Formats: sequence, structure tokens, C-alpha cells
Amino acid sequence: MARTPRHRRLVLPLLCLLFQGATALLFAVFVRYNHETDAALWHWGNHSTVDNEFYFRYPSFQDVHAMVFVGFGFLMVFLQRYGFSSVGFTFLVATFTLQWATLVQGFLHSFHGGHIHVGLESLINADFCAGAVLISFGAVLGKTGPAQLLLMALLETVLFSVNEFILLSLLGVRDAGGSMTIHTFGAYFGLFLSRVLYRSQLEKSRQRQSSVYHSDLFAMIGTIFLWIFWPSFNSAPTALGDGQHRTALNTYYSLTASTLSTFALSALVSGDGRLDMVHIQNAALAGGVVVGTSSEMMLTPFGAVAAGFLAGTVSTLGYKFFTPVLESRFKVQDTCGVHNLHGMPGVLGALLGVVVAWLATHEVYGDGLQSVFPLIAQGQRSATSQAVYQLFGMFVTLALASVGGSLGGLLLKLPFLDSPPDSQCFEDQIYWEVPGEQEAEAQRPLRAEEQDTEA
Amino acid sequence: MARTPRHRRLVLPLLCLLFQGATALLFAVFVRYNHETDAALWHWGNHSTVDNEFYFRYPSFQDVHAMVFVGFGFLMVFLQRYGFSSVGFTFLVATFTLQWATLVQGFLHSFHGGHIHVGLESLINADFCAGAVLISFGAVLGKTGPAQLLLMALLETVLFSVNEFILLSLLGVRDAGGSMTIHTFGAYFGLFLSRVLYRSQLEKSRQRQSSVYHSDLFAMIGTIFLWIFWPSFNSAPTALGDGQHRTALNTYYSLTASTLSTFALSALVSGDGRLDMVHIQNAALAGGVVVGTSSEMMLTPFGAVAAGFLAGTVSTLGYKFFTPVLESRFKVQDTCGVHNLHGMPGVLGALLGVVVAWLATHEVYGDGLQSVFPLIAQGQRSATSQAVYQLFGMFVTLALASVGGSLGGLLLKLPFLDSPPDSQCFEDQIYWEVPGEQEAEAQRPLRAEEQDTEA
Amino acid sequence: MARTPRHRRLVLPLLCLLFQGATALLFAVFVRYNHETDAALWHWGNHSTVDNEFYFRYPSFQDVHAMVFVGFGFLMVFLQRYGFSSVGFTFLVATFTLQWATLVQGFLHSFHGGHIHVGLESLINADFCAGAVLISFGAVLGKTGPAQLLLMALLETVLFSVNEFILLSLLGVRDAGGSMTIHTFGAYFGLFLSRVLYRSQLEKSRQRQSSVYHSDLFAMIGTIFLWIFWPSFNSAPTALGDGQHRTALNTYYSLTASTLSTFALSALVSGDGRLDMVHIQNAALAGGVVVGTSSEMMLTPFGAVAAGFLAGTVSTLGYKFFTPVLESRFKVQDTCGVHNLHGMPGVLGALLGVVVAWLATHEVYGDGLQSVFPLIAQGQRSATSQAVYQLFGMFVTLALASVGGSLGGLLLKLPFLDSPPDSQCFEDQIYWEVPGEQEAEAQRPLRAEEQDTEA
Repeated sequence: MARTPRHRRLVLPLLCLLFQGATALLFAVFVRYNHETDAALWHWGNHSTVDNEFYFRYPSFQDVHAMVFVGFGFLMVFLQRYGFSSVGFTFLVATFTLQWATLVQGFLHSFHGGHIHVGLESLINADFCAGAVLISFGAVLGKTGPAQLLLMALLETVLFSVNEFILLSLLGVRDAGGSMTIHTFGAYFGLFLSRVLYRSQLEKSRQRQSSVYHSDLFAMIGTIFLWIFWPSFNSAPTALGDGQHRTALNTYYSLTASTLSTFALSALVSGDGRLDMVHIQNAALAGGVVVGTSSEMMLTPFGAVAAGFLAGTVSTLGYKFFTPVLESRFKVQDTCGVHNLHGMPGVLGALLGVVVAWLATHEVYGDGLQSVFPLIAQGQRSATSQAVYQLFGMFVTLALASVGGSLGGLLLKLPFLDSPPDSQCFEDQIYWEVPGEQEAEAQRPLRAEEQDTEA
Repeated sequence: MARTPRHRRLVLPLLCLLFQGATALLFAVFVRYNHETDAALWHWGNHSTVDNEFYFRYPSFQDVHAMVFVGFGFLMVFLQRYGFSSVGFTFLVATFTLQWATLVQGFLHSFHGGHIHVGLESLINADFCAGAVLISFGAVLGKTGPAQLLLMALLETVLFSVNEFILLSLLGVRDAGGSMTIHTFGAYFGLFLSRVLYRSQLEKSRQRQSSVYHSDLFAMIGTIFLWIFWPSFNSAPTALGDGQHRTALNTYYSLTASTLSTFALSALVSGDGRLDMVHIQNAALAGGVVVGTSSEMMLTPFGAVAAGFLAGTVSTLGYKFFTPVLESRFKVQDTCGVHNLHGMPGVLGALLGVVVAWLATHEVYGDGLQSVFPLIAQGQRSATSQAVYQLFGMFVTLALASVGGSLGGLLLKLPFLDSPPDSQCFEDQIYWEVPGEQEAEAQRPLRAEEQDTEA
Repeated sequence: MARTPRHRRLVLPLLCLLFQGATALLFAVFVRYNHETDAALWHWGNHSTVDNEFYFRYPSFQDVHAMVFVGFGFLMVFLQRYGFSSVGFTFLVATFTLQWATLVQGFLHSFHGGHIHVGLESLINADFCAGAVLISFGAVLGKTGPAQLLLMALLETVLFSVNEFILLSLLGVRDAGGSMTIHTFGAYFGLFLSRVLYRSQLEKSRQRQSSVYHSDLFAMIGTIFLWIFWPSFNSAPTALGDGQHRTALNTYYSLTASTLSTFALSALVSGDGRLDMVHIQNAALAGGVVVGTSSEMMLTPFGAVAAGFLAGTVSTLGYKFFTPVLESRFKVQDTCGVHNLHGMPGVLGALLGVVVAWLATHEVYGDGLQSVFPLIAQGQRSATSQAVYQLFGMFVTLALASVGGSLGGLLLKLPFLDSPPDSQCFEDQIYWEVPGEQEAEAQRPLRAEEQDTEA
């Protein structure tokens, strides 16, 4: 158990090189361009643009990509001395996940003729998986080193993809924006993992587990980018046409409502009516989570507003009242409060999906039923049956996430993974060369004579 | 007039809940998906992508959305102790405006069969309205509480929408990028409102009414995002095809010129040739404002450059020489200088639209005249007549903005709205739990032995 | 040589006004809308959307635009006292370049009938040129004033456009993402320029040539935006359809690999296993540079990963071991390490393009060969011949960049250009009114009684 700098020097680079070497090898053997990215299989002259989904999905993809890296990365910068790690490890872990998810999801979804065939859809799905991994990262932020996080991503990517495959492909569950597959899964995976890694002596690092003025402003960069791009996140994989259009619209309205309820509740539950930045940074986004399943459905604009309002309320109350209980009673230390932003709103979103699916009729959806609920349209299922499947999907997700997160916690306890000591949690210096803030000399205003003389 | 923390604790949440409840109710009764977002009314299989405007407008919409929340939000973060409020209240006020504008604009523009029919166009128009409200916010930044700002948004959204309806629908005025409807309206609404709320004792908070090094860098995030996405802002509602293309191009060139003239003038008017961040952050953007009306027209690339140059010059000179006069002589305290960035360039943009409309001929526009000036193309108006209508539209805007802003000022004087005292303006702590910058202990570098021992 | 504030007061504004006046005049005489932006030449009703490339390229264009201004601007903010200049001069120099490049590239590429015809393609190409100029800026960051930088942009834009014209139009070289034309050219132009401007007494400013905690976080904004939008950068000018799709995909995978290798190498080469922010901010991006030439080709996903891995490795090692040698031995002071991020990966990217072109066959590309290698498809060249041309293009680029950069260095030595003195490098105060960080008074927490009394 004696960790020395020499040891630390080797674990992270060796893991990176090992993982990169392995994925590169698998890329060489298995990964090929799909028919839309291969020059020989596709040629522009033979097709009309209309057939090329790439152009209808690329703007959404770029927004999703921005959410994962800018949004999650900066949202977690709120800690006073963990900015380098928050944005840096987000970068590292998400990046590895993109490669690894391409492979795992490829084997499950687009493996034929001995090869995985990749295109824009692969990139979007990999980004979604990275989103789930970063949600889990939020639960253990500050208490895990980069080598641990890489192992977490390795395991979580597999389980995420398996869960997604079970829900979407085997059970015929609808979950375009991932209330279940991304948010519920990512949150409970992270929470169970954090439970296993419970630190009774975390008090020793408590003075660093808070924000400073500027770190909160940096975190707001993350919040705002997540907020503005969430309509693209939920609509990226939905059916072209009215499906994407409706999904974006529902998500937009749900987010406006969760923001308003967050401001209301934040002021209401504080002792003196002041707003709490933690609520604004996080709970305001719960509206995007809660319509992840149902925003492609005929939720109605009012339904979107009501769902967002509920999610913002539950999320803010969670930060205020439930997070402390989670730690004291359930021994789950949830640094970013992912239970409030992703866990509870994710489960609510799954249940909302159950209700909206249950209400689906041929009359309301018309010919569009085929896009949203193909099994109902084809007469293979009733709406009630679809609702039951949706509910079952949620329980599958919770089961896989909790088992997976617990296993992950055991895995991350491997002694060579260089976990930070209790007194050095939430601290960049243990993993980064940190410059400090010593700009005192430089701040001294130049005197006029000095400038002239110099010149 | 005795405001206590208990009282403050209730005003904002009650307003949020009241407003959200009311809009939710109206959403339930009136708002429905339009034919492009409803699954039954639209089904992909029956239409070609080409017919779905959604895909041609969505990327621009996302840029507009980013401008409103990232751009305006961070542009106003420049004050040293008002970052939470700048970005937070932007978030709150813009969010409420999006819901409320959907309703008000929906009643005016897309109300038929007893329902408001919403789609992407509704979202873009709501974002435009939020832009105007945030411009007004810039004038009173630091001197108004969140409850006041919500009431301002309530009133301004109605007047904005009425003004827009009069100009675009009744008068047949062209104003795609909103030199009049957004910038002129938002600026003078805010300035008249600020006039009514004039504080003779604002000197008491003067020490906080300036930037610090990092807050200026945060503000540059806002500037740069506004700058890069402005071509999308002006082109979002224009005719598809050459119209959007030309609008984006004109806006791009106009912004390059306003940036160059701002740098030139900023150095020229300073005492010692040094540049002023206030000018760069703001006046450089005046090129986007000044072509708001005319960028969809055949302005010519040279016309765009000339207009941008003029706007940057006027705006910079405004910050240097006119803002102090505005306060001392006209008793208008304009925190962000919206008169310089939106007011004067907006009026200039309206006048430029008058001139360019007056020059419109069938020869120059060809068949495209139908898209840009349908009333001229249909023979219902001469170019001169269109120019007169454009000019009239500007005066209508100024009249509605000044009357509306004055009314708004009276409304915001309602005593229960919890306005900050003169000595606590530009201060986050009155509305937010603020963490301070006490990271001294954490900054201490770890000693080598400490690390080893810990581990 | 006596520079006084009065003198300084005039050089920058006069240059700005002179340059803007000249480009405005040239715009008036030469620049016209092209057939896709002119209302009379193009009218929507007569065309189908499918024919309008604007809609397929606009989202990529906006990403490129964001990379140039947000990405490069903030990436260079890492210096503790040079944030205003980094983001401000990026803004100034890039803006001027956009106008000037429109003219220079227009004369070379779209001049007919006595006019330059501009459209979206002009904007994309101008942004690319601005990218190259900003790379050069990175080499001399902190050691040059804004007037010098404007002159650099004036010269470099001409040489960039000439080099690009020679490669793409005369030699038939393929270089969509600009490994040669943008990165290699920009880097070596800047490095030779920095060589000529070598300061033996730069030690006097060394205390400012480092980051502080917050400046490194601001720089990460630049890194992340460059990273997420690079797929659009490389694909913006490629053939529609599979070409853009494949280019985006290759770039995405290459960047994931360069990020992983950067993390691995950064920890490996440090004394104690800690990560270095300089590496993460920069070397992680080398994967975008290295596939600039080959990402539109049939590089294969594995090829992209391998190339990215190599680039991240070379770049990180460059920062660690070669940058000091470059200064001590070759007297090249490279502030941002552009040799590591753009120079070496750019040359590697050119060589990779040689190899991948050499491997091109009709079998692999099918009908798509016409888009990627039209001269091979038309039988005018063999693949080997194309490879030789690619290699020749790299040497032409290196030759033009080194001669041009050296000339640029001599030009920038003109005494009236107000270069900062050796002891005032990396310092904003010499060019900007800087507010300092004196927010001490404001930070004092309000006492409860104070708040109540005030109210």
C-alpha cells in the first residue's frame, strides 16, 4: 500500500497506453467506415442530399459534443481547488469512453460481416455514453484519481451499452434522450460506487469541498452550455422531421419551467431568502433530464412545462434536504449532487415516459405512431403493454446500475490505483503541477516614469 | 417600506410561482403543437425533408439561443461583485420571457382555431424577445432586484410583441435582425426605465461599479460569443436561400469593421493611447446591431463594412463622451452603456434600413424582391413609400419604448419589490449566498514530505 | 527611437484606420455578392434547397468561426497578466485578417468580370487564414504590440493565400484541413518571425511568463472549444456527402487518441508523475492538426487513431524537451509552443497525406475518387505522382513560411511600431487600462445588522 511518487508516475501513463493500445488494435481489426462514410460505398453523385442523414443530425451532434465536454467539464469546476482535475479528468475520461464505447456499442449494434461499421450515429452514441460516465464522475468528484476513473469508464461503458441494448433493442423501450439509459443509469452507478468508496474521514478535506466566487462563475459556463444545448441532446437520436422538432420544443419548455421553479424554491428554502448557486447551477437543468424519455412523444407543451416544474422543485429540495441525509444516513457522499440532478429527475422521467406511453393512441399520433412507437403501430403491442415495458426498463436500469456501481467500487479499491488520501481530497496538487495565484508583483501598477524610462 | 429578510424571502419565490402557474395554465388551455411538430399532423413519410424548414433554421436558432444566454449573460459579468446576479438573473429573466413571449406572440401571430400553434419559429421569436429584455436589463444592471426584473419582463414582453406586431404585420416594415424591434426598443425601454428609477445617491456604491481583471475576461466570453453568432441572429428569421446567406455575410463584414473602428477609436480617445476593455467588450459588437434591419437587403459588402465602421465609431465615442453626460445631465444611469451599443446603433440601423429600402429596385433584386420587399414586388408600394414606412416604424418603436419604459419604472417602484439600497447596488451578497475568495489555506503548496507521509 | 505615450496613442489607431479605409475602398470597387447571395442572381423559388450548399456548410462554418475566436483567443489567455491582450489582440488581428483575406483570396480564387464574388466559401477561407495568423501570433505572444501584429497579418495573409493557391490550384495538392497550408505555414512563419525578433534580455520578463490558477482554467475554455469543433474545421471545405462525413469522423477519433497519449506522456515525463496543464491545453489538440491533410482520404478509423496517438506523443515530448532547446540553441522564443502543436504535427500531417495519397486506388475509393483525388480519377496522375506533389507542397509551404516569417520579422522591427521593452513583455498594462484585482473591500461579508439597517 505504500504509494510513492515513482509509483504514481507509472500507473496513469501505463493505463492510458495499455487502454489506447488495446482499443487501437481492436480498431484495426474490427472498425470500418459505414456506407455513408466510405468513399467507395457512398458516392455523392449517386445520391441526393435528402438521403444523407448526416446533414440533419450533424448540428445536433456538435451540440451534444459541446455539452459533454464544455457542459459537464465546466459544471464540475465549482470546487475551489479542483478545477484542473474537474475539467482535465472530464477530458481524459470522456475521451477514452468515446473510443471504448465505439467498440462496445459497435459490437452490439452495428457488427456484421465481421466488422463494426461506424458513422455519425456511432459518434453520437459514444458521446451519450460519455455523458453517463461523467454523471457517475460527478458523484465521486474529488475523491478518485485519474487511474481509478479510467477503470470506472472501462466498466461503466460496458454496462451502459448492455443496459441500453436490453432496453432499446430487446425490450423495445423508448428512451431517446436517456432519462433511463443515461441519467438514471449514470447517477445510480455513481452513487453505488460512491457508497462502496465511502470515506468516514472525509471531514479532513471539508475545507476544500466548497466553491469560491470565480469557480462558481466558471461552473455557470457549464450550466449555461448544458441548458442551451439540451434540446439537441434529447432530439439527436429521434426520428427525422416532426420527431426531432417536437423533442427540441418539449425540452426547451421543460427547461424554462425547471429554471423558474429552481429560483423559486432556492429562495424559499434558504434561511434568509438568498439564492444558492449550487441550486441554480444544477437543479435548473433538471427539466432536460425529466423529459429525456417523453420529449419525443406527444407530451404537449403544457406537459413539458409541468414536468420541468416538478423536476426543478424535486431537484432543489433534494440539494437542500436529501443530500445531507444521503451522506449521514446512507453513507453516500455525492459531491455534485448527481442524485438530485440526474437520479431523481431520471426516475421521474422514466415514470413520465410510462404514463405518456400508456396514453398513446392512433388518434393522437396518426401516421407518426410508426416513428415513436413502432411496436404499437404494427399491432405487436398495446399502449398499456408498452407502458409496462417502459416501467420494466426502468427497473432493469436501476438493477444494472446498482450492481455495476457496486462492482465498480470494489474494482476502484484496488490498491495500486492511487486514490487520494482523506486529507487530500478535492485538491488538484496531488495530480497536477499547480501554479498558484502569486501574481502580486505583476499586479503592481506601473508608474508613469517607469514606462517612459523603459521605452 | 420596512423590508426584512423574511419579506425578501417571499417576494421572489411567490412571483416565480405565480407567473409560472399562470403561464402553465395558459399553456394548458391555449398552446398546441403546430403542423410541423405534431405527430399526427406531420408525418415524415409523407413529406420530403426539403419542405421542413426546421432543418434550415435549427442551427441558426441554436446560435441565437447561445447568444441570449451565454452572450448576454457573460457580457454583463464585468462588474467585480455582481457576477452571480448578472449571469443568474439573465438566466431567470430570459427563461421567464421565453414562456411568456410564447403566449403573447402566439396570441398575436399564430392564434387560430382557439389555439396558439407553436414550432421552431415560436422559439426563435421568444429568444428575440428575451434579447430585448436583456438589453433593458443592461441599463439597470446592479440597481434592481430579481423580483423587479420579472415584472419588467412581464410588461416589456407585451409591449415588445405589440410593437413588433405593429411594425412587421400592420406596417409591413422589414426588420429581420431587429435594429428597431429588438435593439432600439430594448435600449430605450431600459433607458427610460432607468430614468424613472434614477438614484441620486448611487455614489455610495460607486466603488463596486467597476471591473476586476478576471471579471473582464469573463465578460469577453460574452463578447466573443455574441460576435461569432451574430450572423445567425440576423439571418434566423429571413427568407430561406439567398436571403439567409446574404444576411449572414453582411453581418459578418459589418462586425469586422465595427471591431476595427472600436480599437482605433478606443486608443485614440484615451489619455495615453491605452485600450479600454469596456469599448472592446461592447462597441466592437455595434456592427451587428447596425445592420439588423438592412442585412437581408442588397446592402452590398461595402455597405456592410461602412455601416459597421460607423457604428463602432459612434458606439465608442458614446461610451467615452456621452455616457457621463447621460447621467449628469439627463439623469439616466446606464450601467452597461446600452445606449451606446444598442440605442444609437439601433437608430442608425433603422435609418440605414430607410435608405436601403428607398434604393430598392426590381433591377437590383430581380425575382428576389418578393422575399425581401413583398409589398413592392406586388406593386402595393413604391420603394419610397416603403422607406417612409420604415422611418415611421422607427418612431413608433421609440414612442412605445419610451412610454413603456416610463411605465415600467413606475411599476418597479412598487415598494414590496425589494430594490437594493443605494449603498448595496452592484453587490451579489444582497441576493445570493456568496462564498468569498478565502482559498488561502488551500493554496499553500504541499511540502514533499507531507505528500509522502499522507500516502 | 524615443517612444512616448503620445506616439503610442497614434500608431495603432492610424494603422487601424488606414487599413480599414483601404480595405473598404477595395470592397467598394471589387467585392460583389456571388450567385448564391445576390437576390437577383439567385431566387429561392427557382431552386431546390438541395442545390444550395449554404445549408450544408453553414453549421461547419459557425464551428470554424467559433474555433478561431473562442478557441485561439482563450487558449492564449494562460499567461497571468496577458489575458486582455491575448483575447483582445486575437480579436483585432483575426478581424482585420477576415477582411483582408477576403480581398487577397478573392483576387486569386473568385475574380471574374472585374469583381470578386463572395459567399459563404469566402468567409470559411478567410477564417482559415485567420487561423494561420493566430498560430503565428502564438509564437510571438507577449513580445509584440498590436501595431506589429496588424503588419504581421497584412504580410502573412498575402503569403498564406499565395501558398494556398500554389498548393491547391497549381499543384493539385489535397489539404482540406490545412496540415500544410494552415498549421505548418502558420507555425513556421511565426517561428522564423520570432527568430528575427529574438530578445536576449527576455529574462527580465520571465516572472510574468507563466500562468496562474484561473488563467489556466480560462485557457481550457479555448482548448475544449478547439477540441469539440475540430471535426467541423477539417470537414468544412471537403466534398459534400461522404467526404464531410468521413473527415469529421477521422478527426474525432484522431483527437481522442492524441488526448490519451498526451495524458500518458505528460505524467510520464514529469519528475513526480503530475500532469502539466501546458501539455493538456495544447498537445491534446495535435490529433486535429495531424489529420488535416488526410482526414478526407480513406485513412481508416485505425489510421486516425494511430496518427492522433503519434501526434500527441510528439507534441508532448516537444513541449518537455524541444522548446527549451529551441530557445537556447536556435534562439527561437516560442511563447505558446506552436512548434509543438502546429509545426511538428503539421509536418507529420503532410507526410501522412503523402503516404495515404500514395496508397490511393480506384478499388478503395470507387466513384468517390473523383471527389478526393480528381486528377487521379481523371487519369492525369498516378497515386505515386500525387504523393510526390503532396510532398513537394510541403516543401513549398516550408520555404514560403520561412522566407515570409523572416521578412515579417524585419518588417516588425520598424521602430515606430511600439514593441514592448524587454522588461514589459507578457504585460497587459502597457497596452490596456487594467483594473487590477482590488476587490478587497467589496469582499468583506455583510454583517447581518448592516443589511437590516440599510433596508
